Amino acid sequence: MKALLLIVCVLVSTQVFAQPPARIISPEVQPDGHVTFRLHAPNAAKVEVSVEGQGPGTPMQKDEQGIWSATVGPLQPDIYGYSLTADGVGLIDPSNQLMKPNLLNTQSAVHVPGPPSASLPWEVADVPHGQIHHHFYRSKIVGDDRDFYVYTPPGYNAAAKQDYPVLYLLHGFSDSANGWSAVGQANVILDNLIAQGKAKPMIVVMPLGYGDMEVITRGWGSWSDKQLAWRNLSRFTDVLLGEVVPQIEGSYKVKKDRESRAVAGLSMGGAESLLTGLNHLDKFAWVGAFSSGGIDNQEFSAEFPAVTAGANKQLKLLWIACGTDDGLIKVNRALKSWLKEKGVQYTDIETPGAHTWMVWRRNLAAIAPLLFR
Amino acid sequence: MKALLLIVCVLVSTQVFAQPPARIISPEVQPDGHVTFRLHAPNAAKVEVSVEGQGPGTPMQKDEQGIWSATVGPLQPDIYGYSLTADGVGLIDPSNQLMKPNLLNTQSAVHVPGPPSASLPWEVADVPHGQIHHHFYRSKIVGDDRDFYVYTPPGYNAAAKQDYPVLYLLHGFSDSANGWSAVGQANVILDNLIAQGKAKPMIVVMPLGYGDMEVITRGWGSWSDKQLAWRNLSRFTDVLLGEVVPQIEGSYKVKKDRESRAVAGLSMGGAESLLTGLNHLDKFAWVGAFSSGGIDNQEFSAEFPAVTAGANKQLKLLWIACGTDDGLIKVNRALKSWLKEKGVQYTDIETPGAHTWMVWRRNLAAIAPLLFR
Repeated sequence: MKALLLIVCVLVSTQVFAQPPARIISPEVQPDGHVTFRLHAPNAAKVEVSVEGQGPGTPMQKDEQGIWSATVGPLQPDIYGYSLTADGVGLIDPSNQLMKPNLLNTQSAVHVPGPPSASLPWEVADVPHGQIHHHFYRSKIVGDDRDFYVYTPPGYNAAAKQDYPVLYLLHGFSDSANGWSAVGQANVILDNLIAQGKAKPMIVVMPLGYGDMEVITRGWGSWSDKQLAWRNLSRFTDVLLGEVVPQIEGSYKVKKDRESRAVAGLSMGGAESLLTGLNHLDKFAWVGAFSSGGIDNQEFSAEFPAVTAGANKQLKLLWIACGTDDGLIKVNRALKSWLKEKGVQYTDIETPGAHTWMVWRRNLAAIAPLLFR
Repeated sequence: MKALLLIVCVLVSTQVFAQPPARIISPEVQPDGHVTFRLHAPNAAKVEVSVEGQGPGTPMQKDEQGIWSATVGPLQPDIYGYSLTADGVGLIDPSNQLMKPNLLNTQSAVHVPGPPSASLPWEVADVPHGQIHHHFYRSKIVGDDRDFYVYTPPGYNAAAKQDYPVLYLLHGFSDSANGWSAVGQANVILDNLIAQGKAKPMIVVMPLGYGDMEVITRGWGSWSDKQLAWRNLSRFTDVLLGEVVPQIEGSYKVKKDRESRAVAGLSMGGAESLLTGLNHLDKFAWVGAFSSGGIDNQEFSAEFPAVTAGANKQLKLLWIACGTDDGLIKVNRALKSWLKEKGVQYTDIETPGAHTWMVWRRNLAAIAPLLFR
């Protein structure tokens, strides 16, 4: 066995592996929820750390070795994205391998754990785990190579007789198809809810949520091109209904009636859920919008021409959630007023929080138990 | 539709999205294979870029706006990891969302494409695609929550009668379980080889390759603890044979004879493949080591007590590959000399290249066609 170890010694001693010069501990999470961030940047003039949902950045202080640090919190138990900014340049924390992947702005991530006695909905517990299946295909509608992820619950068996209901779960602008699995912990949340008997076993489909990737390749400003923005949103509905749903229903053990299909999403994905769901009530009976829904009041009738009080008979759930610190809370409330005028029933959820994954993980944990009942 | 666009406009205008101050293009890949890297770091005194397999870092030059840049190459078409170093601090390129994930040293990545006429083995082509399945379980042997990935080839159907052979494909030290899928492009390589009729359809299992995660949590220096290093390697074999193989053979349509099982891996995973494969010839008939194999000469007999010329009857393939620029080429050659003395037949592969994923992707593309023939 000693001999095998030699391999590794050789690897390290010959610096085959790139070895960082000194070990900086960042982030350091204390038991009371305070988190210390550190960055070695001896020549920087100004360094700060910005934590998801915690408002403006916190200035960091430099010590004699050129290591900047700041302690933030106490933070509530959760998973937070964060980034460091050194002289105006946003950085992923080089001392931390935990990431919050994103197509336009990958950040670092830090997990502030809950009490050991009771794991939180997004924390891995000793319960049966489902699987995540990564699918790849060439989209005829968009003309590109794209992917989607599928969560199957514990015990799912493609050869079994049981058919499952399906939640189509949509990410936000700048997320990749892995948003809900890699950042949103959707599989962990479902594993836990199912183990506790709080949610029905279901399949969760997490597609790439763009009808046109140009909204990403052209960067943050792409949305000022209204034609592109329109194409992105409307063609996504075409992709979902024309390409993703047929692949799911052709290869998984799923129920195919409208009462066994839900669509929900966050931010851009919330808008897509409303557009797709409310305009295709023949296909979906459950619709959820997280931190979206806020839509210009005058236009709602044009957006949702089919939505009248008659929709109440078809909708098993219309769930509209938004954080009260989210800039979208106003337009969100305007949508709800419009629905009220129309006589359309909805579930009104306003929670503390901003436009963050902390809100959306809780949204998923709250809506999943209501579905397919 | 205008109304839906308002959501996004509100999001951008209220800076719900963190927006980088200025757009830096990095990396910029030119058609001839030159690649320009850029970093905005006005106060840095020294910035360089290090590209996987390209030797020492290249110094970058600063312009009037504080943007550092360097052009490297021409690079052969491939996928390269790289990192930037600013005043001694290794950084992920903040302008590039393409990553090379790793548990100890996540880097940025850049794809230098091959000619449009003929896609390279690791480039997505318009061929049928397999799927990647992500499994999660609690290891009784190690006592932690861990994962593995499974590639199923195009057309795989859990309800079909066809049974597939299985390649257990192991990553290297510091990689995560997603090393072969997220960095090694294993699914793309198999998709392409299968579509071309060069490889038999097979299932590829990519487990987390550590018997003890302390080798990771204690960082690069962990290997100096010989007891830990031993536990990590030997317990991995226990996990593979005792936990991963049974889960695969219990839930996938796979053949269960030794001639339908292969084990191969890179670096640490190469050592694990030799240890597991050569010491369990009752379970594996195909063994491959990429950039590993180099083991202290005096000890080989202790490592592989069962290996005699008699192994030739059982081994359908013993494939030992290493790049000639790899620090491990010497110990690799020593292993081959020992095998020769013992009268054990092996396939001897020496290719250009260092201890890099460029070598290992080619290794996979070269070995897969030989398996299960």
